[in-house]
Amino acid sequence: MYFSKKDLHFQLFENLQVTELGRFPYFQDHDRETFQMVLDSAEQIATQSLRPHLTDMDRNEPQLVDGKIHVHPAMGDIIRQFAEGGWINATFSYDEGGQQLPSVMHMAAGFIFQSANYSASVYPFLTTGAANLIRTFGSQTLKETFIPNMLSGKWQGTMALTEPDAGSSLADIRTTAHPTDRPGVYKIKGQKIYISCGDHDACDNVIHLMLAKIPGAPLGVKGISLFVVPQKRVPSGEGNDVLTEGIYHKMGYKGAPIAHLMIGSQDGCKGYLVGEPHQGLAYMFQMMNEARIGVGMNAVAIGTAAYYASLDYAKERPQGRKLGEKDLSQPQVPIIKHADVKRMLLFQKAITEGALNLILYCAQLADIAHAGAGKDAEEAALLLDLLTPIAKSYPSEMCCLTTSAAVQVLGGAGYTRDFPVEQYYREARIHPIHEGTTGIHGMDLLGRKVLMKDGIALRLLSKAIVETIHSAEKQEKLRPFSQSLQRYLEKAGALTQHLVAKAPRDPEGFLADASLYLEYLGILVVAWRWLAMGITATESLERENAQSDFLHGKLAAMRYFYEYELVKMDGLGKRLSSLDQVTVEMRQEWF
Amino acid sequence: MYFSKKDLHFQLFENLQVTELGRFPYFQDHDRETFQMVLDSAEQIATQSLRPHLTDMDRNEPQLVDGKIHVHPAMGDIIRQFAEGGWINATFSYDEGGQQLPSVMHMAAGFIFQSANYSASVYPFLTTGAANLIRTFGSQTLKETFIPNMLSGKWQGTMALTEPDAGSSLADIRTTAHPTDRPGVYKIKGQKIYISCGDHDACDNVIHLMLAKIPGAPLGVKGISLFVVPQKRVPSGEGNDVLTEGIYHKMGYKGAPIAHLMIGSQDGCKGYLVGEPHQGLAYMFQMMNEARIGVGMNAVAIGTAAYYASLDYAKERPQGRKLGEKDLSQPQVPIIKHADVKRMLLFQKAITEGALNLILYCAQLADIAHAGAGKDAEEAALLLDLLTPIAKSYPSEMCCLTTSAAVQVLGGAGYTRDFPVEQYYREARIHPIHEGTTGIHGMDLLGRKVLMKDGIALRLLSKAIVETIHSAEKQEKLRPFSQSLQRYLEKAGALTQHLVAKAPRDPEGFLADASLYLEYLGILVVAWRWLAMGITATESLERENAQSDFLHGKLAAMRYFYEYELVKMDGLGKRLSSLDQVTVEMRQEWF
Repeated sequence: MYFSKKDLHFQLFENLQVTELGRFPYFQDHDRETFQMVLDSAEQIATQSLRPHLTDMDRNEPQLVDGKIHVHPAMGDIIRQFAEGGWINATFSYDEGGQQLPSVMHMAAGFIFQSANYSASVYPFLTTGAANLIRTFGSQTLKETFIPNMLSGKWQGTMALTEPDAGSSLADIRTTAHPTDRPGVYKIKGQKIYISCGDHDACDNVIHLMLAKIPGAPLGVKGISLFVVPQKRVPSGEGNDVLTEGIYHKMGYKGAPIAHLMIGSQDGCKGYLVGEPHQGLAYMFQMMNEARIGVGMNAVAIGTAAYYASLDYAKERPQGRKLGEKDLSQPQVPIIKHADVKRMLLFQKAITEGALNLILYCAQLADIAHAGAGKDAEEAALLLDLLTPIAKSYPSEMCCLTTSAAVQVLGGAGYTRDFPVEQYYREARIHPIHEGTTGIHGMDLLGRKVLMKDGIALRLLSKAIVETIHSAEKQEKLRPFSQSLQRYLEKAGALTQHLVAKAPRDPEGFLADASLYLEYLGILVVAWRWLAMGITATESLERENAQSDFLHGKLAAMRYFYEYELVKMDGLGKRLSSLDQVTVEMRQEWF
Repeated sequence: MYFSKKDLHFQLFENLQVTELGRFPYFQDHDRETFQMVLDSAEQIATQSLRPHLTDMDRNEPQLVDGKIHVHPAMGDIIRQFAEGGWINATFSYDEGGQQLPSVMHMAAGFIFQSANYSASVYPFLTTGAANLIRTFGSQTLKETFIPNMLSGKWQGTMALTEPDAGSSLADIRTTAHPTDRPGVYKIKGQKIYISCGDHDACDNVIHLMLAKIPGAPLGVKGISLFVVPQKRVPSGEGNDVLTEGIYHKMGYKGAPIAHLMIGSQDGCKGYLVGEPHQGLAYMFQMMNEARIGVGMNAVAIGTAAYYASLDYAKERPQGRKLGEKDLSQPQVPIIKHADVKRMLLFQKAITEGALNLILYCAQLADIAHAGAGKDAEEAALLLDLLTPIAKSYPSEMCCLTTSAAVQVLGGAGYTRDFPVEQYYREARIHPIHEGTTGIHGMDLLGRKVLMKDGIALRLLSKAIVETIHSAEKQEKLRPFSQSLQRYLEKAGALTQHLVAKAPRDPEGFLADASLYLEYLGILVVAWRWLAMGITATESLERENAQSDFLHGKLAAMRYFYEYELVKMDGLGKRLSSLDQVTVEMRQEWF
């Protein structure tokens, strides 16, 4: 078992009630039955085609041979299966060959793929993102030229942003795009690094969605344009002077290749402008916002697989006896009987299920923002904007710790390559880095999202949390939790006021601990999602007893989160309120 | 740079004043000059012989070929250099060919070796431990037969404890030792797993210090005896029926081989009883206590190497501009100028230097307990006993996080194998597992050490902390820190009372959160060590300005610890005081 279908159904259908999305015309053909089919068919591909290669892809990583990256031989088939199943463009409109699937269901299916084999899931995900950019901002010609072969899995899509001197600082990219005499066609020249799936032999062509600067453009991010840059020209198939200069060997998710690309070094690379000049970053950010929630999901998926691997082990592995058992002739008990092991398992359960709920909630907001109208859609978009850095970073940071707990449950065995948990531990570590580091997202949250439109998004969040608190108050058993959340919500409000007051006179001090503020608000938000799940579980328990083990487990995980995680806000809050600016005042020469 | 000699000198000579150990007759030949020579010669071996193989040993891990484990070809020379330098028996008495070096200096030298290349440092360390057991508890014949070739590096020593069904639960080992007609000689039969350096081709023989049970022995740990079990018989050199059944491939510290051994499967394995029958665990624990502090040091050493790797990168890597810099034509600044990066560096500095101080302090206690007499020696032994689980576990757990911060400072680069930080991240992860998991040490601390002799050790710790607080009060600048520590010390006292009161009526509830209590007390103890270093730094600053950058850095790291780490006791304390026993009440079927 690498994920829980029961939990996924509980979260989607009982807690979030995603079938209500059917009220929007765009989603009107969908209902619980079609949604369950989506999950079932995702599980089938995941179990039959992705899962069997999990270990093998880690042990046989991609290699660069004579300028071409060779990936695991199973990848060609896997990509074709994703394409044939309609996964690459499932969320696209019927007109575009899609299924108008809500994003929340696409995310849920992605969760299953990623839990099964994160590396393999990356390829189609990137193609979806790239195709999505072309269909949203590209000309009719670009769409017709590139999208069909991307959706069929024949061609790989990528996001080509990072350069040797421009990682977090996209303002500093140096790749140039010189106009040619053909409108919309540019000569591209530069270097891109860390390009996921930037070259490989499981597809016939690679379509890069690449950021570059047109000469004379404004400095900084306002001068960045977006181009389609194919590896091979279309339809001729001849080379487009996009050369694979190197491959990065990584600590984890080794099944997906990361390339270093030289573009136009022979002066022969053609790129095609997407949309208007100088709008590239705005376009890219639309996709990056989705990708960011997606990264949070990747982290949760890996954390979930690790949780179930350690749970299985804990049930089977006999070691030690219950405290107080003096009779040593008694057999040893499975380690799941020890409170400290249950603590490590509950930690994983509380973090992964809570974070999963937050991400699905965000995806549902994206669906409402997209398919809804008026104030509802607007508010959903604002709330999503605020929650995106949290939905990206909280799971990314925390699932480094949950996979570590999985390793710890297995003990010495967990450190060996005989079990998958060490692989999960290595794979989880990428997520606080890619699609914006945690530090960048902290500044995005506190420096931009909290302040935007006079703090309206934070008020919307506060309102949503208060509504959940009111619902929970109807259940006597939940009152200690709703009261606790109320207290922390008030503290968070006061702390935010305190910080924001600092912003005008001391911008550096204001943002110095933005990463801590991100963690602080992340805990609050996940506690809220746990209370929402607690309400659903309590109501279900009153109705029926069939699933009661599952529901009791839910309530125990909520208790765990409130007892062990929510209280971390105390220390974080104390630090965030402090006037000592040691990180600002620290000097390079003092290290 | 992989460690700071300046910091090591500060900690040893200024803060801990280890030269005062010269007051004991056993150490009387040592002074600052001999100690510095020890450190210089350790650095020379580390830099010239260990460091160059760091990456290579990770990439070319040991392999089992035809029943023999082959390790990196440099290991033979490295082991010989350790032996020739007198490192294996440096702490032994002159009579035994040693140098009567204080343990604290041996540990400090070990820190240098481990920072340079942890895997390579493991081999001689294990031989020291094994030889130490023979010289302390073995007969004259055993000493003469085995020790000389171990000290010369010709033979490897090991600790052979773990079995397939007996890891944390040593009471359950099944390896048997049947008496023969020769007194002290037994026939050994069984299996041992996870034996570090249990077989390899860089030495001629492997001398296992092995736990086994003599038939008819009491059940459990009271029936365990200790044996010397050589891989090849001495002096004949013929096989002793100790076969290498397998090798474990690990996530990290791949340079050191871990073996699965079959002992006596052909009925031909002879072992030699060490000391008295049934005393094996007591003997082994003497060595394990040293080994446990040693594991804490390994963790700190790896954390330190990662800290300096990320510090070097942060000084060199330009990315982004200072907040508020609007002129994009200005060059990018090194990332060390960003507060969030300084935060991640200060975190590493505060944890690794604070934990290093705790471990050196513990090693100094071991020296006083060993070479001193009367009440001083007795109290040092008690305090060491109490601090051992903390000195083992706090650095082990925290250096998983500091190496993670090092990866994060490098961003995408840190996740690739082009930089050493990903290796440090993988290597650090073993330490919360081996020599007793964190869960085991939590129970040791709360269930045994805190309670022992009516709580005397905890009172000694409290007294030592109060003394430091009183010294700090003399310095006005340190008063906020001493007052803060005083408050947390009082809270910790009250919390411990609260927990201990639970012990008789609810032993499971009492120990359920022992791991959290270990973390809680660990933070307090390291905050105390930081205050002690803060006093030394403040006094030094008053005297001279030469090293002021270094001393300002010390004080900033202390501030960091109090601002960001000490406050974590709030949340932990709240949880530890709570009456909700969710981990005890959680049931297997609810997961």
